[in-house]
Amino acid sequence: MDASIWIAIVSIVTAGLTITIGAIAPALAEGRAAAQALTAIAQQPDATNTITRTLFVSLAMIESTAIYCFVVAMILLFANPFVEIAAAAGG
Amino acid sequence: MDASIWIAIVSIVTAGLTITIGAIAPALAEGRAAAQALTAIAQQPDATNTITRTLFVSLAMIESTAIYCFVVAMILLFANPFVEIAAAAGG
Amino acid sequence: MDASIWIAIVSIVTAGLTITIGAIAPALAEGRAAAQALTAIAQQPDATNTITRTLFVSLAMIESTAIYCFVVAMILLFANPFVEIAAAAGG
Amino acid sequence: MDASIWIAIVSIVTAGLTITIGAIAPALAEGRAAAQALTAIAQQPDATNTITRTLFVSLAMIESTAIYCFVVAMILLFANPFVEIAAAAGG
Amino acid sequence: MDASIWIAIVSIVTAGLTITIGAIAPALAEGRAAAQALTAIAQQPDATNTITRTLFVSLAMIESTAIYCFVVAMILLFANPFVEIAAAAGG
Amino acid sequence: MDASIWIAIVSIVTAGLTITIGAIAPALAEGRAAAQALTAIAQQPDATNTITRTLFVSLAMIESTAIYCFVVAMILLFANPFVEIAAAAGG
Amino acid sequence: MDASIWIAIVSIVTAGLTITIGAIAPALAEGRAAAQALTAIAQQPDATNTITRTLFVSLAMIESTAIYCFVVAMILLFANPFVEIAAAAGG
Amino acid sequence: MDASIWIAIVSIVTAGLTITIGAIAPALAEGRAAAQALTAIAQQPDATNTITRTLFVSLAMIESTAIYCFVVAMILLFANPFVEIAAAAGG
Amino acid sequence: MDASIWIAIVSIVTAGLTITIGAIAPALAEGRAAAQALTAIAQQPDATNTITRTLFVSLAMIESTAIYCFVVAMILLFANPFVEIAAAAGG
Amino acid sequence: MDASIWIAIVSIVTAGLTITIGAIAPALAEGRAAAQALTAIAQQPDATNTITRTLFVSLAMIESTAIYCFVVAMILLFANPFVEIAAAAGG
Amino acid sequence: MDASIWIAIVSIVTAGLTITIGAIAPALAEGRAAAQALTAIAQQPDATNTITRTLFVSLAMIESTAIYCFVVAMILLFANPFVEIAAAAGG
Amino acid sequence: MDASIWIAIVSIVTAGLTITIGAIAPALAEGRAAAQALTAIAQQPDATNTITRTLFVSLAMIESTAIYCFVVAMILLFANPFVEIAAAAGG
Amino acid sequence: MDASIWIAIVSIVTAGLTITIGAIAPALAEGRAAAQALTAIAQQPDATNTITRTLFVSLAMIESTAIYCFVVAMILLFANPFVEIAAAAGG
Amino acid sequence: MDASIWIAIVSIVTAGLTITIGAIAPALAEGRAAAQALTAIAQQPDATNTITRTLFVSLAMIESTAIYCFVVAMILLFANPFVEIAAAAGG
Repeated sequence: MDASIWIAIVSIVTAGLTITIGAIAPALAEGRAAAQALTAIAQQPDATNTITRTLFVSLAMIESTAIYCFVVAMILLFANPFVEIAAAAGG
Repeated sequence: MDASIWIAIVSIVTAGLTITIGAIAPALAEGRAAAQALTAIAQQPDATNTITRTLFVSLAMIESTAIYCFVVAMILLFANPFVEIAAAAGG
Repeated sequence: MDASIWIAIVSIVTAGLTITIGAIAPALAEGRAAAQALTAIAQQPDATNTITRTLFVSLAMIESTAIYCFVVAMILLFANPFVEIAAAAGG
Repeated sequence: MDASIWIAIVSIVTAGLTITIGAIAPALAEGRAAAQALTAIAQQPDATNTITRTLFVSLAMIESTAIYCFVVAMILLFANPFVEIAAAAGG
Repeated sequence: MDASIWIAIVSIVTAGLTITIGAIAPALAEGRAAAQALTAIAQQPDATNTITRTLFVSLAMIESTAIYCFVVAMILLFANPFVEIAAAAGG
Repeated sequence: MDASIWIAIVSIVTAGLTITIGAIAPALAEGRAAAQALTAIAQQPDATNTITRTLFVSLAMIESTAIYCFVVAMILLFANPFVEIAAAAGG
Repeated sequence: MDASIWIAIVSIVTAGLTITIGAIAPALAEGRAAAQALTAIAQQPDATNTITRTLFVSLAMIESTAIYCFVVAMILLFANPFVEIAAAAGG
Repeated sequence: MDASIWIAIVSIVTAGLTITIGAIAPALAEGRAAAQALTAIAQQPDATNTITRTLFVSLAMIESTAIYCFVVAMILLFANPFVEIAAAAGG
Repeated sequence: MDASIWIAIVSIVTAGLTITIGAIAPALAEGRAAAQALTAIAQQPDATNTITRTLFVSLAMIESTAIYCFVVAMILLFANPFVEIAAAAGG
Repeated sequence: MDASIWIAIVSIVTAGLTITIGAIAPALAEGRAAAQALTAIAQQPDATNTITRTLFVSLAMIESTAIYCFVVAMILLFANPFVEIAAAAGG
Repeated sequence: MDASIWIAIVSIVTAGLTITIGAIAPALAEGRAAAQALTAIAQQPDATNTITRTLFVSLAMIESTAIYCFVVAMILLFANPFVEIAAAAGG
Repeated sequence: MDASIWIAIVSIVTAGLTITIGAIAPALAEGRAAAQALTAIAQQPDATNTITRTLFVSLAMIESTAIYCFVVAMILLFANPFVEIAAAAGG
Repeated sequence: MDASIWIAIVSIVTAGLTITIGAIAPALAEGRAAAQALTAIAQQPDATNTITRTLFVSLAMIESTAIYCFVVAMILLFANPFVEIAAAAGG
Repeated sequence: MDASIWIAIVSIVTAGLTITIGAIAPALAEGRAAAQALTAIAQQPDATNTITRTLFVSLAMIESTAIYCFVVAMILLFANPFVEIAAAAGG
């Protein structure tokens, strides 16, 4: 089995793990923030605008860590810099 | 056993793990957000509209992390970029 | 042992794990949402309609992550795209 | 040891794990929902009908994830699609 | 060591694990439901009938997941469909 | 080392693990139910009869899962169906 | 190393693990029940008789799961049914 | 290395693990019961006699599970039934 | 397989793990901070400005640890100092 | 490497683990009991005598499980019954 | 594969793990401190200055542990003292 | 590599683990007891003398379990009874 | 691969782990102490001076354990006493 | 690779682990004690002197367990009694 296959196998596994584990914490954190936002609205309906605005900024910030992971997974699958090296070395 | 079989085995396992582990956190987070929304409705029935609207936006945002995982799993099963490389290398 | 057997073994294990682990989080999340809905009904019997409607929408959304897993498991057992590749390669 | 034996071993182990791990979360979730329902009845005896009805719908929905697992286990034991492939390949 | 012995070993281990792990969650869930039922009776002695009736229905539903596991364990020990295949293959 | 020895070793280990792990959850669940029953008696001494009766029914139901495990352990030690197969195969 | 030695080693390890792991849950459960009983007595000194009676019945029931484990450990050390089989097979 | 050495090594390790793991749960349970007893005395100084008596009976019962483990460890070190078998087999 | 391939494999895996594990804690911490900020706004709507300003400074500080990880992952993928060494050594 | 060295290595490791793991639970339990005693004194300064007396009896009882482990460790290091057997066997 | 490659592989993995694991605790701790600061501002808006000043000093102190890890990771990647030794030894 | 080196390696590792793991629980328990003592002083400043006296006795008792571990570690490093045996056997 | 390379590899890994794991607990502890200090200031603004002074002394004390780890990591990287031994032995 | 190298490797790893794991519990315990002290000062500012004095005594006592570990790590690195034995044996 030549080198590019090993790169392929490792890239597949790493891409899958990166997005799947990287999605755990943002999902939980978003769930927590959303849950707390709903409680806050129930407690103080007058502040709904401030609360939802703060919530959406926070969700975007948290989502950014999931997007870091998604970016790395996509790089590994479709723009992997080591594939050329492997092609050059094992080609 | 030639290279494309290894790619196949690794892709199957990774696809399964990606969607299965990737589904844990969104499900829990959605359960939490939904549970809190129900509490909030019980506390402040007058704000039901705001609460359910915020809930559905949040659920969609959380669901997005599950969808990232589903997308990667589908790519691995049906549009795997390394299958061609393996076909070229081991063909 | 030829290649299609390996594909078969890996598919069986992955299918089983996918549905079994993928069922954990939705079940827990549904239990949580349902438990909270019952508490909410007890607190505010007048809002029963809103609560059960929100509950059923949420349950459906949570159930969807379990269904993603069930779909992947079924694909692996009955519509596995790599079986043909293995048949072509090891046939 | 020929191929069908490996399929058999893997199917037995996977079937057992599928149902046993797949039964954990529904049981816990049902216990939680039932416990909360009992609390709710104690708090608001007048809403017993609504509560038990919502409880049974929720229990059925949660039970469905256990049944997914049971179905997969039964498929693996009695309607395993790979047994024929193994019979054809290793026969 | 011929094939039926491997089937036997795997079946013994799987049967034991299936029932033992499969008994954890129902036991805990039943304990939780029963504990909550006792609290509920202490809080609202007038609703004892409704509470115990709901409790027994819930216990039966939870017990059902333990029985799924017990059924699979018994199938593996006494009605294992792969024993005949092994007898045919390794006989 | 012939086949019946392997069956013996596997049966010993599985029997021990089955009863020992299978005893964890029922013991904890019984402890929880009993603890809650004592609290309930302290809260509502007039309902002692109902509480202890419900407690004993629940303890029996929980104990049943421990007994499933004990039964499987005893079967593995003293009525193991695979011993005859091993005797026939390796005898 | 002949067969009876393997049986001996496995029996020693299994016996030790059986009693040691099997003692964890009953001890914790008894501690919990006892702790709650003491709280209950402090809350309702008039119900001391009922509480201690219920406590002792519960402790006996919980202790029974520890005794199951002790029985299996003793059987493995002093009345192991596989020792004769090993003596017959490897003798 | 002959057989009795293996028996010795296994017995040493098992004896150590048995008492050390077997001591965890009773210690924690006794600590819990004692802590609750002190709280109970602080809440209801008049019931000191009943509380300490119930505490000591409970401590003795919990201690019994530690003693089971100590007994098994001592049997393994000083009255191990398999040493004679090993002496006979490997002697 | 020559040295640069090993460097490639190790770099891919490490880059994936670095960003994926490194994203867990910041996401959770940001979720916690955001949730608490929403609670704080609900409690004290007059202090919204101070609260959101403090929140954004804190989020930036927490995000910095995720960025450390992202930087290391990018260095490993695109500016890896050991690739030249490997090229020199294995070239 | 002859037999007595193996006995020595195993005894050293087991002795260390026995005392180190065996010290965890008693320390935690004593810390809990002591912490609760201090709370109890703060709540009910008049019952200091009863509380400290009950505390010291409980500490002694909990300490006994640590001493069991210390005894076994000392036996393994300085009075190990298997050293003579090893000396006789490997001597 | 010569020595400098091994140094490279080990350095890459260690650098990644150091920063990624080293970022977990500071992120969580900063999240906790920030969350508590927001609660404190909501409780006592008059003390905002003192609170934010104490918060920033604490964040800096906590961040310092993350920076220790980042420093070590950078040293391993770009100023590794063992690379020269390896060059001298394996050169 | 002769026997005394193995004894040395095992002794070093065991000594390190013994003191390091053995220090966890006492430190946590002392932290808990001290924390509770400070709460108690804050609640009941008049009982400071009794509280600190009880605290120091408890700390000494808890510290004793750490000292058991330190003693065993020191014995393993500086007074190891098996070193002579190894010297005699491998000398 | 000669000895100094092994020393180098082991030192790199150990240095990385030492600082990274050693930074977890101090960071968490500092976060906890800082969070509590902020709560304390919010509760009792008049005691700000005492609180911040006690906080900084405590932070310094906790930071000291992180510094122990940093010192050991630096010793391993830049002043490793075994490098000379390895140079002498393998040189 | 001769013996003194093995001693060196084992000593490096053990020293690193000893101080790093040994620093976890004291740091957490000190954080807890300090946090509680700050709460106590906020609750009872008049008892500041007693509280800080008790805190510092407790911190010193807890720090002692970290110092035990630091001492053992330093002994292993700079005064290791087995290095001479290895020098004598492998020299």
